[in-house]
Formats: sequence, structure tokens, C-alpha cells
Amino acid sequence: MSTIEKVLARIDADLDKSLVRLFELLKIKSISTDPVFKTDCRAAAEWLSRELTDFGIDANVRDTDGHPMVVGHKKTGKSGPHVLFYGHYDVQPVDPPELWHSDPFDPKIVIREDGTEMIVARGAADDKGQLMTFVEAARAYVAETGDLPIDVSILLEGEEETGSPSLHPFLIANKDELTCDLALVCDSDMWDAETPAVTVMLRGLVSEEVSVKAAGRDLHSGMYGGAARNPIHVIADIVANLHDHNGKVTLEGFYDGVVEMPLDVKHLWEEIGFDAKAFLNCVDLEIPAGETDRSLLEQIWTRPTAEVNGIIGGYAGAGFKTVIPAEASLKISFRLVGNQDPVKVRDAFRSYVHSKIPADCSVDFKAHGGSPALRLDFDNPALTKGKNALSDEWGKTAVLIGCGGSIPIVGDFKTMLGMDSMLIGFGLDDDAVHSPNEKYNMKSFHKGIRSWARILDALSKE
Amino acid sequence: MSTIEKVLARIDADLDKSLVRLFELLKIKSISTDPVFKTDCRAAAEWLSRELTDFGIDANVRDTDGHPMVVGHKKTGKSGPHVLFYGHYDVQPVDPPELWHSDPFDPKIVIREDGTEMIVARGAADDKGQLMTFVEAARAYVAETGDLPIDVSILLEGEEETGSPSLHPFLIANKDELTCDLALVCDSDMWDAETPAVTVMLRGLVSEEVSVKAAGRDLHSGMYGGAARNPIHVIADIVANLHDHNGKVTLEGFYDGVVEMPLDVKHLWEEIGFDAKAFLNCVDLEIPAGETDRSLLEQIWTRPTAEVNGIIGGYAGAGFKTVIPAEASLKISFRLVGNQDPVKVRDAFRSYVHSKIPADCSVDFKAHGGSPALRLDFDNPALTKGKNALSDEWGKTAVLIGCGGSIPIVGDFKTMLGMDSMLIGFGLDDDAVHSPNEKYNMKSFHKGIRSWARILDALSKE
Repeated sequence: MSTIEKVLARIDADLDKSLVRLFELLKIKSISTDPVFKTDCRAAAEWLSRELTDFGIDANVRDTDGHPMVVGHKKTGKSGPHVLFYGHYDVQPVDPPELWHSDPFDPKIVIREDGTEMIVARGAADDKGQLMTFVEAARAYVAETGDLPIDVSILLEGEEETGSPSLHPFLIANKDELTCDLALVCDSDMWDAETPAVTVMLRGLVSEEVSVKAAGRDLHSGMYGGAARNPIHVIADIVANLHDHNGKVTLEGFYDGVVEMPLDVKHLWEEIGFDAKAFLNCVDLEIPAGETDRSLLEQIWTRPTAEVNGIIGGYAGAGFKTVIPAEASLKISFRLVGNQDPVKVRDAFRSYVHSKIPADCSVDFKAHGGSPALRLDFDNPALTKGKNALSDEWGKTAVLIGCGGSIPIVGDFKTMLGMDSMLIGFGLDDDAVHSPNEKYNMKSFHKGIRSWARILDALSKE
Repeated sequence: MSTIEKVLARIDADLDKSLVRLFELLKIKSISTDPVFKTDCRAAAEWLSRELTDFGIDANVRDTDGHPMVVGHKKTGKSGPHVLFYGHYDVQPVDPPELWHSDPFDPKIVIREDGTEMIVARGAADDKGQLMTFVEAARAYVAETGDLPIDVSILLEGEEETGSPSLHPFLIANKDELTCDLALVCDSDMWDAETPAVTVMLRGLVSEEVSVKAAGRDLHSGMYGGAARNPIHVIADIVANLHDHNGKVTLEGFYDGVVEMPLDVKHLWEEIGFDAKAFLNCVDLEIPAGETDRSLLEQIWTRPTAEVNGIIGGYAGAGFKTVIPAEASLKISFRLVGNQDPVKVRDAFRSYVHSKIPADCSVDFKAHGGSPALRLDFDNPALTKGKNALSDEWGKTAVLIGCGGSIPIVGDFKTMLGMDSMLIGFGLDDDAVHSPNEKYNMKSFHKGIRSWARILDALSKE
């Protein structure tokens, strides 16, 4: 029996004990948004620090201006890559409590009609269940072999659900301690219940607020209509000409830096049987609205976008006012991919808007977020190892997927620590994270632990 | 000395008495919006009824569900046209009181630095001062000649500042009594302090609310951006294509029924020295935004418009939300001229909108106001007589002007009683109606009375 086979056998044998430990953590009401639960958050951090210490990780609780961090290290003296595992112990509030079928902080095993075993509790998936898959894998590895196969550091925060206000200063203050060869982030989903996935692409984001001012005050459309500039018409013109008839964004140089996917990745996506119609039908739509020459997966993962997220001008209340407003405004965001430069995209948009502003109107801009896209290189050896380890465990080729949105921690690791992240998680679409009756499949938990054991083993190999 | 000369001489001689009567009316706090002043409103109606009765008008106070009407008649047995004079005795609230330099219900004569004598009080112009110009003219006429030169009816309402809720039922219930050959409406302005005007054109109005629904719920623009239809983009497209590059409205058949002005009216407008730049500069604009081949006066008086009065969709609060909203909506109004058909304009707009809605989106319409444009025929003999009488009084040719907005009473007289209106008033731009320190120039009051005497005289002639 090989080392990894022994470790996997121990994971299977100890699953009940792993569950008991997970339940202990799930019982702690570590709701980070509500000051009432401040001591619960600290209790969760202390529980985790003790657990890690218990199997030989050099761990402790670190104070911040908000909820504390847990940091742990296990140096092995071995030659493989040094990884930093990231997770968060805080959870969302439980509102509305009346929609829960059982106490959100009294975890239960529930068996669905189709036979699926589920762990039901707040945080079962996001992120206590997910982070414990890694912790339990490491514990089993140490229990079976007396050590880990590679150097491992662990960072667990307690403010992920509140925008991580203490994270930046903590990363800056502890940059040397926390910078590793690769981050492992366990806060993402599988492709489906049978198919594991590695998230390798995250779109970047540029957001911008635009206000167009025309007359010095609101005007009566009877008295001024036909003569006075209407700023609603001006912003409509800006929005309407942002895309051409093929759904392409018209800003100059917008597609500079956009990278085409390798053909094998595209082929894999064609094979995994993504149902674009069902994806849209779920939200009562039918027709992909983006670039006409791209598949829906490309539209949401690998292609940049321009979307107006808000527009307001004039009278929008009940009834009617025949006003020509003095001002109208919009909020727009661009999702970036590949090497698109957030600064250049913002500049191109502002130039375009200026070209649409009549001489007697003025425009104000307000910059919101601006971050580049992130991508793990397809030829990164860790990616190949992780993907193969997952494929071995699940008996199905792991898919490399994109994520249309951004995950702040991944950007922070990249920009502040210069560290790439490999996102692997075992969540599913129906886990109801942030909602009542959150659950995590027992299979996700069990095979998630086994997956991490395999990944650690794989990363230690040449 | 001719009859009219004698009447004018009496007006001059009795001006102080006319002023005393106006001040009595101005002291009554007939604020129609505030129930606290309900008895004051009735007091104003009763005061007016007594005044009219005092010089031989068969007048009385008529109850409604709201504030009462005053109706009076003077039958002369003479052959000229029978006119209905309309005015309103209610006034706007005085807020904010601290901005008034004197008690709004204690009228004062104030002499401005440039020597202009002004009557300052709430309602001095709108509409107590204006309506009393007619009442005092009629009183002087009767005092000097024992009768009026033509049959006169009078309708004074007390709800004009609150949207005239009792007017429609009152017009219906008293249709035969109130239907005359012509209405005289004294609630409008002169061209400038030296130049009298008759308002002969009022634009019509079609207003419409449009809601476009896309996905069944708000979507995250990271997850769905690039694939899901954004209804803000859909409504922007609707707005942006409503006008062509020359400012013309693109709806099919929109200009059907638009009538060109007679050349002599256009020439008069060129001569009266309207300063388009100053008009726009007053509201911090410079460039006429409407049809490029039309003068600004045409743009606001004789040309139809399409103006979006409100637009809303997505997140418009502080900060940013990367949402693709489920719905976006707009409010739009069309100003109509000539014989444009409100029904056809609404239909053309709805067809146009339908052509812009993607197959998996839906659109809802909500109709608001719909009324045709109103115009006094340029060859109406009463118009010529009124215009000449004004020109004689002021020593300057009276201008025939348009009004970009609508005046509901004029539409009601036309549609409910089949009666045209001639709008003559002596207000000025700087009267501060609805604002603190409302005033009416003494010259407007004095020459206004003289003007009405001349108009009544002129209308009695062949």
C-alpha cells in the first residue's frame, strides 16, 4: 500500500471523528457582521488554533482591529512547493430565522429523498465545511505519516463576510511570513455533483460613476422642451453606443490584452455539456445577450463586458412630472480578462464619454473599483498536479473553469504577496450559502478531505 | 368723447378705489391646498360674489365637493359675442414665510429703485390681481354707461392651485349655462413689460411610462455579465434612437398634423427681438438642443417634442452594486402641436418600443395624460379685435405668442364646452408667482383694467 493509499484509508476510517470536529466548529456562532457575536468569533479562532496545534501545526491566534486571524505553519524540510491554505471561519447571519427547518447552529445530518446525505447548518459549506476538508486531510496525513509531504502554512480569517477590513494591513505586516509559492483557496464550487473543478480564471473589474449636468436647475418640459438639452438623452446616447450590433464593446483599444483560450480548454468546455439554455432559463431568459460569435461560457468567463448597473435621472416616483432634469447619472462596470489594463479601460471610457457630451453640458466621473483579471498559467505544474489528483479521486476529469466575478483574496494575494492562487472547492450550486438551510453534501466533505490529501501528495512529487 | 374714452377716464379716476378693493381681496387667506384655510376660501368667493352683484352682475356662490365656484351673468340683449371670463381666487401657500419681506396677506405698494410701483402680496399676480383687472373694467363700464357692451358671464374657481378637482363635474353639470361664444382667460403674461401679448397656441401632451423586464430577478454582473440581457441597455437604445441627428423625432408619422405658422406670424417673431441665447443662458445652457432647422421660439411654441422626464434602473444609491437589474423604466412625454393626434402618437411610440424589445424581454406601458394642442384660429375676428385693442392701449403692436406647456382650463373649455379661449394677461416674468414676495406691477393692474375695457368695447363692434 502506498503512502497516499494509507492516508486515504485513515480518512475513511476516521470520517466520524472528522464529522464530530466539524460539528463542534459549526456550533460556534461566529457571525462576523454583528458585534453581539464578537466573542463567538474569537472562540472559533481559538478552537481552530487548538485543533491545528493538536496535530502538530505551529498555530496561534493573531489579534487585529477586528476579528482575529489564525495562522499556522508546518515546516517539513522537504523540497516541494510551500503552500498557503486560506479559508474563513466567519459566517453570514441567519436571517430570516423562521425559514430554517432546524436550528442553524445545531448541525444535523439530513438525508434527502434522492438519498443524498447533507450536513445542514449555517457555515456548513461557506466556509467551515470547506476549510475543514483541508484541515482534516492534513491531520490524517500527519497521523498516518508523522508529517506533511510539503511545507504548509495556513491563514484563516474571520471577516470574509464583512469585506475583510483587517486583511490588507495584516498581509502587509506579515508579508514575509505569509508569502509562499502558491495559495490554495477553498471557497469555490465543483462543476457539478460528479465533476471536480479548478477555478483558474477570475475576471477583473473597473467600475465608474458618470454624472452629466445640463441646465442649472430642473426645467419645465412645456416651457423648455425642444430647446433645452436633456441629460437623460445624453446618457442614453452614451449607453446605446457602447456596444455594436454584434455585442462587441466599442471603446477604443478595449480588447487589447484579451487572451484567447488554448484550444484544448475550449474543447473541454464543449465536452462538459454546459446547457446555456438552461442557465438562462433559470432566470427567465433565453437569448445570450453578449458577443454573437462567442459561446455562453466564453461570454461569462473569458470575454470582457461593459454593463450599466444603475441609471437615474428626472422624476421616477409615482405619477408623472413633466420635467427636464438638470442632471442624469449612471453606474457602469467593466469585467476584464487576460491582460486588459484597468487604467487604460477607464481612460478609454472617459474619452468616449467626453466625446458624447455637448459643449454646454458638463460631466463628472467617480472611480470605483479597478482590478485586473487573474489567471493561473495553464502550464503551471501545480495546476496539472492538482487537476490530476482531483480527477483520480472523483473518477472524472477535473474541469478548468472561469469565474465571471472577482474573489478579492485572490487579487490581494497576487498584488500584495505576488502569489498565484489555485481555487479548489467542493461546494455545489444548491448549497444555499448565505440563505436559510445552508448545507454541504457529505460526499463533498468526505471526498473533499480525500482530494486535499491527494493534492498534497501530488504537489510533493517531481 | 366716445364711450370708451369716458370709460377709460373713469378707470383712471377710480384707480384708488379699485386698489382698495383689490387689497380687500388680497387680505383673504384663500390658500386652497391647506384645509386650515377652507373658510377663507369661501370668504373670498363670497366677497367676489358680493362685488359682482354690487355693480349689477347676477352672481352667486356655488357649492362643490371642494371649494366653491363663483358664477355671474350680465345679459345685455346686445348682438355681440357672449364671452365667459375665467379666473381663480385661490392662491399658493406662502412657504417659506421667512423669505417674505412683509406679511404676504397684508398687501403693500412697494416702489423699486428703478421707479416701478408694485403691489406685493400673495396672489397679487396669480390670479387675484389679474382677475380684478377684468372685474374692475366691467364695473367701470357699467358705472359709466349703465350696462356692459356685450353679454358677459364670469366663472371664478377656488381650486386652480390644487389641480381643479371640482371643475370637470361642475362644467358637466352646468354645461348649458357656461357655454359661450368665447372664453377670456386672464392667467398669462405679457411679452415684456412694454409689449402686450395674446397667447394663441398651447402645445398638447401625451405622457407614457415604459417598463422593460428582462431576467426574473436582479443578477450578479460577474456571474451573468456578458450573457444576460441588461434592460438598462434596452431602454437606453429606445431613448437614443428617438431623435435623428437633426433633432427630429423618428417615430413613424409623428409629424402628421403639424402645421406651419403663417409667414406674417413668423416675421413678427423675428422682429420682436427674442434673445435665444439669453433665454438659454438663464438656465446655464447655450446651445438650442432641438430641431436644427428651427428657431428657438419655434422649438418651444410650434414644434412637437419627445422628452424623457425620468429614467431609473438598477442600483442608484451611494457606492456601487454590480447588478444587472431585472427591470428598467422610463417616463416620456410628447408635446403636440397643430392637429397631431394624441392617440396616433401614443400608438406610434408603443410600436417603436416593441420593435426594440428582445424576444425574451417584456414591456409594460402605462398611459398618463393625452391631450391635443389648442390654437385660436389666426383669422378669428375676436383675436384681431383683442390684439388691436391691446395695441391701442399699450402703444405697441400686441404679439401673438405660443405657450410650450398646456393650461388645463383651456383644454377643458375646448373639449367639454366646445369653446375656444383667448388668453390675455398682464403678468411679467419677474412677478414671482408661487414664490415669496409675489408682486404685480401697478402698470399691469391699471393698464390691464383699461385693456379689458377696450377689448369689451372692441368685441361689441362689427
